[in-house]
Amino acid sequence: MKHPVTFVSLGPGDPELITLKGLKALQQADCIFYPATAGPNHRVVSRAGDILKALGMPSDALQPFFLPMSKGRETAKLVYAQIALRSIALHEEGKKVAIAAEGDAGFYSSSHYIYDDLTERRIPVTTIAGIPAFIASGALAGIHVVKQEEPLTVFPGTVSAEELRATLQEGKTAVIMKLSQCEAAVKVCMRQTAGHVWHYFENVGLESAFYTADCGVIEGKRFPYFSLMVIKP
Amino acid sequence: MKHPVTFVSLGPGDPELITLKGLKALQQADCIFYPATAGPNHRVVSRAGDILKALGMPSDALQPFFLPMSKGRETAKLVYAQIALRSIALHEEGKKVAIAAEGDAGFYSSSHYIYDDLTERRIPVTTIAGIPAFIASGALAGIHVVKQEEPLTVFPGTVSAEELRATLQEGKTAVIMKLSQCEAAVKVCMRQTAGHVWHYFENVGLESAFYTADCGVIEGKRFPYFSLMVIKP
Repeated sequence: MKHPVTFVSLGPGDPELITLKGLKALQQADCIFYPATAGPNHRVVSRAGDILKALGMPSDALQPFFLPMSKGRETAKLVYAQIALRSIALHEEGKKVAIAAEGDAGFYSSSHYIYDDLTERRIPVTTIAGIPAFIASGALAGIHVVKQEEPLTVFPGTVSAEELRATLQEGKTAVIMKLSQCEAAVKVCMRQTAGHVWHYFENVGLESAFYTADCGVIEGKRFPYFSLMVIKP
Repeated sequence: MKHPVTFVSLGPGDPELITLKGLKALQQADCIFYPATAGPNHRVVSRAGDILKALGMPSDALQPFFLPMSKGRETAKLVYAQIALRSIALHEEGKKVAIAAEGDAGFYSSSHYIYDDLTERRIPVTTIAGIPAFIASGALAGIHVVKQEEPLTVFPGTVSAEELRATLQEGKTAVIMKLSQCEAAVKVCMRQTAGHVWHYFENVGLESAFYTADCGVIEGKRFPYFSLMVIKP
């Protein structure tokens, strides 16, 4: 008997923010692939790995795959292609394969490269949804990201100051993911736009989570990898 | 000892799509308020109630509050104000109060009325995040709602055909919540816009979930209350 390859969303970082369904799929998996980077002294650096270990996943099921720290997407694609092939081999042996993704596996997740590879080869796949970081941010700060008739635009880190200003002037709430990629543009827009509240978040879902809505503090920040913003009219 | 009033997000409908943290908060609560409507023959109609019962919550903790079916927001506000007052009374007695919300409690959730009432009166509150319906829709259809550099705009049911067309022409992915409120506008735009994929969803998270990307089928549909769309360039 063969089982679909299951993409399991881990949520934003707090292990308890995984769903019951996601946890069950992980517990039943023979093999769990998860993204990592190689840190100093041969250390495996992985937020997904930290979540999986906190959830008590057995180490013999855990299979990290190492993504290049540089922005070379082509190298990363080779890594994803390898994981797709390894997943297919295990799937053909009747093994239950899980591919873990931080946040939600269908919302700005690089796991789509593996997913696309598998579906092109007609391997059955299934996805278990998870909480994106921007949703968890709202809960952390005690704000409603959007309510009633408020429209929302989410930018993935490539937004320009002009584009962001136009969105805010239309009265839309804006969420900016991958904030480190557009730090300069966001700061330019923040200096030039009055009357909005700029909610800044780092490491949402972790013990080290940081939140401020003080523009002075935000101005002095170097935006790290795990940062995002919610800007409200 | 007093405990913060906890807003617990239930997720999109499948009881197993609640988080571990959300389930734990519900299990520890002395009282769980949840939204309902009065159905025929004195029946309590409540998606939140169905989830809570499926999760095994004891009936003596469950407290439905009844929202008017009509769009009278003022009447609904009176109901929310009552729940805020009842929550405060229980909180002062040292009881653990949970307020359950479908989807995510901070994402187009009417529970913000209760939240705002409590915070204005300086009652400590906390929120546990959940999966919004549009995120679960992506998993259901096996699509990535957004990936890489794709921006996303979410409309809450008040979008016009012109506004939607402009968003799609900018190359943005669009999500439309509360689809029943803008059925005519969406259908007009769908007829006039070529080259996009229109993903239509009903009752995501339930057994009765329905999905199609066939514009002919969508055209013939009367959009129900629990429906939404993901439109991709």
